[in-house]
Amino acid sequence: MGSPALRLQLLVAIVAGLVLPGPGAAQQADESSVPTTSVPGAMSPRIHADGRVTFTLRAPEARSLQLEGGDGLGKGPFPMTKDADGTWNVTIAPPVPGFHYYWFVLYGVQVNDPASETFFGYGRETSGIEIPEPGASYYALTAVPHGAVREHWYFSKTTGEWRRARIYTPPGYDKDKTRRYPVLILQHGSGEDETGWTRQGRAQWILDNLVASGRARPMIVVMDRGYARRPGMPAFALGPATTNGELAAAYGAFEDVVIHDLIPAIDAAYRTIPDREHRALAGLSMGGMQALRIGLHHLDEFAWIATLSGPFMRHADPAAQVMTSMLGPFDTKTAYDGAFADPTKLNARLKLLWIGVGTAEPDLFHQSIGDAVELLRHSGVRLTWFESQGTAHEWQTWRRDLDDLAPRLFQ
Amino acid sequence: MGSPALRLQLLVAIVAGLVLPGPGAAQQADESSVPTTSVPGAMSPRIHADGRVTFTLRAPEARSLQLEGGDGLGKGPFPMTKDADGTWNVTIAPPVPGFHYYWFVLYGVQVNDPASETFFGYGRETSGIEIPEPGASYYALTAVPHGAVREHWYFSKTTGEWRRARIYTPPGYDKDKTRRYPVLILQHGSGEDETGWTRQGRAQWILDNLVASGRARPMIVVMDRGYARRPGMPAFALGPATTNGELAAAYGAFEDVVIHDLIPAIDAAYRTIPDREHRALAGLSMGGMQALRIGLHHLDEFAWIATLSGPFMRHADPAAQVMTSMLGPFDTKTAYDGAFADPTKLNARLKLLWIGVGTAEPDLFHQSIGDAVELLRHSGVRLTWFESQGTAHEWQTWRRDLDDLAPRLFQ
Repeated sequence: MGSPALRLQLLVAIVAGLVLPGPGAAQQADESSVPTTSVPGAMSPRIHADGRVTFTLRAPEARSLQLEGGDGLGKGPFPMTKDADGTWNVTIAPPVPGFHYYWFVLYGVQVNDPASETFFGYGRETSGIEIPEPGASYYALTAVPHGAVREHWYFSKTTGEWRRARIYTPPGYDKDKTRRYPVLILQHGSGEDETGWTRQGRAQWILDNLVASGRARPMIVVMDRGYARRPGMPAFALGPATTNGELAAAYGAFEDVVIHDLIPAIDAAYRTIPDREHRALAGLSMGGMQALRIGLHHLDEFAWIATLSGPFMRHADPAAQVMTSMLGPFDTKTAYDGAFADPTKLNARLKLLWIGVGTAEPDLFHQSIGDAVELLRHSGVRLTWFESQGTAHEWQTWRRDLDDLAPRLFQ
Repeated sequence: MGSPALRLQLLVAIVAGLVLPGPGAAQQADESSVPTTSVPGAMSPRIHADGRVTFTLRAPEARSLQLEGGDGLGKGPFPMTKDADGTWNVTIAPPVPGFHYYWFVLYGVQVNDPASETFFGYGRETSGIEIPEPGASYYALTAVPHGAVREHWYFSKTTGEWRRARIYTPPGYDKDKTRRYPVLILQHGSGEDETGWTRQGRAQWILDNLVASGRARPMIVVMDRGYARRPGMPAFALGPATTNGELAAAYGAFEDVVIHDLIPAIDAAYRTIPDREHRALAGLSMGGMQALRIGLHHLDEFAWIATLSGPFMRHADPAAQVMTSMLGPFDTKTAYDGAFADPTKLNARLKLLWIGVGTAEPDLFHQSIGDAVELLRHSGVRLTWFESQGTAHEWQTWRRDLDDLAPRLFQ
């Protein structure tokens, strides 16, 4: 049976989780608390009563350690200091409320915090911290009827592979077995995946709360991974010389997935109302660019389009460089294959064009999207414009966006 | 608008994901492949045609780096070597097929592989690698009708908190709106959580394939996080002096969650057949210990009980030490409050007692569980005994277990 030490080691291995303190321990005597993004039982990071946050990592052998993170955390790097027992820590100024990615840097290597759950961002699994926003309950898990979030695998003829989407079905979906629902396709940003809107964004609780208060119509929300490659398609490297045509080809595979694989799969598996009047396409950042491109290209499929911090492509010329196309002059006659050329016709066909941005976002987003809005309005395109006050190119902007957008859909 | 360099940086940030090669790039000219556990587009680790595996991490500043992992990987530490460009790598002997946790060690700190998805094990998010088993298709995602996996949040009166469970509904659940299904509650092991059985274990595909072949009856599978603390309950530290009574108190909160919170929540939300004849309780390792304890204590709730590599507690005495209780003599008259004392009565009441273990597991599991099986059989208790040949205390054992167990349930 092995030595007593080995026996104990094995025994501890199979019941060890019991030593973990539960979430009840999160609230400490010093009135600091552990964020909801920490793993159950974790004692760090600690959000202090004054809003400052202390991050901790045990690394006795290290000679230097830094903290880095997203915009709302202050980015860093924040140098950390080592205690006598080998635990490093740093306390930072109160971060902006909302969800922020973060990580430690150890000899140049990005290290996740073992105390944190992981969230897919920057093309990898990354630590994250949720900073509460005082008074904001619209994205909280509350005692209202809840929808369900499912993993849905479907086979894509476009890519020749199985793909994994997340599907939110609204409260009551399982009970009322004949009712059919409109569909919002809701896409993540660059480097994220189909889990972003429910894990970082809390879209399911925003929708649950909106439906409970009667502000939004119950809807099915479809979240897919916004990347696709046709079999044999070469890797695409974005650079200063990349053209609109190259970008369109790279985005084109995902466009085909949405139109030819995803929508049919969802309409077959769920009780949707399968027509354009009951189908919306929205996305954040890169997902907003995709929503504009795919939505305006397929007005027979979508009557509702929304871009959340997703810049406009201003040039139709496939040979024009992408960067110039995003920042250069905006020609409403030619952009998006002329989708905006006849505002009266577009206004009659499109039930909603929703455009949002955070006021603290960089100019590429805030100013360029604002400029596009002005030009479109001037040309007579009807649109809804939403500015999230004081929030950056981060999830708090997009949570607010969804809270504004969803009540306007399918009404 | 900022400098051109800043503009490009921002632009790259929002569309950068496009540079990622898709999974189509996984199969390389040298016939090595990237495991399914890597993030989309990742180029490592690489499984070579001869079964050896190369792990890679870029860390130019590091002066030493090791690879470590679970039993089936060979555990390590495996020293890594640095290339001229600062990339460390190591090639290890062919691992045992199945899923293995792994991580890098950098100056004593556990570092996840950015190329890998993360899996909750050891109480933290950890890298993992799937090594294919030649000829084993029972846990593969195949072109058969698929069930759905949902996140289900429910409020627990026992803990005073919201809890997150995963629910598998079988193929056809959404279509046939009146059919009701039996329920298997299926628990993870120590340090894991409710995501383990679908992410590491692939339970959903094992069930999909069993249902498609007609071997198993369609069932709902409920996976909860096997930890719970009553409000104010002190942290529980397991050690050599821990008694059965202390362990029972620590497990007791989860027992109450299962009986008083989880089962009612599931029966209210899903089309279950809500009686003992159609409810099974199973778990792996710590989850198996819980299945035995909770199941035998609540035969009014469960007619089917299974322990997958979960040792028996042999002593009824609450003052006895846990370790002695697991390894000491087994008294079928007193263990589990006398549940085995009257085999005739138990055999009439229990439709299945299923006990499994891998032959390559340590004696604490393989020998002690085997000994218990012998004693129970000798005393007249009817049971099903399954040995997974050559597999360790890892997920490949538990996948095989589920493939054997599920067809026996509810028949």
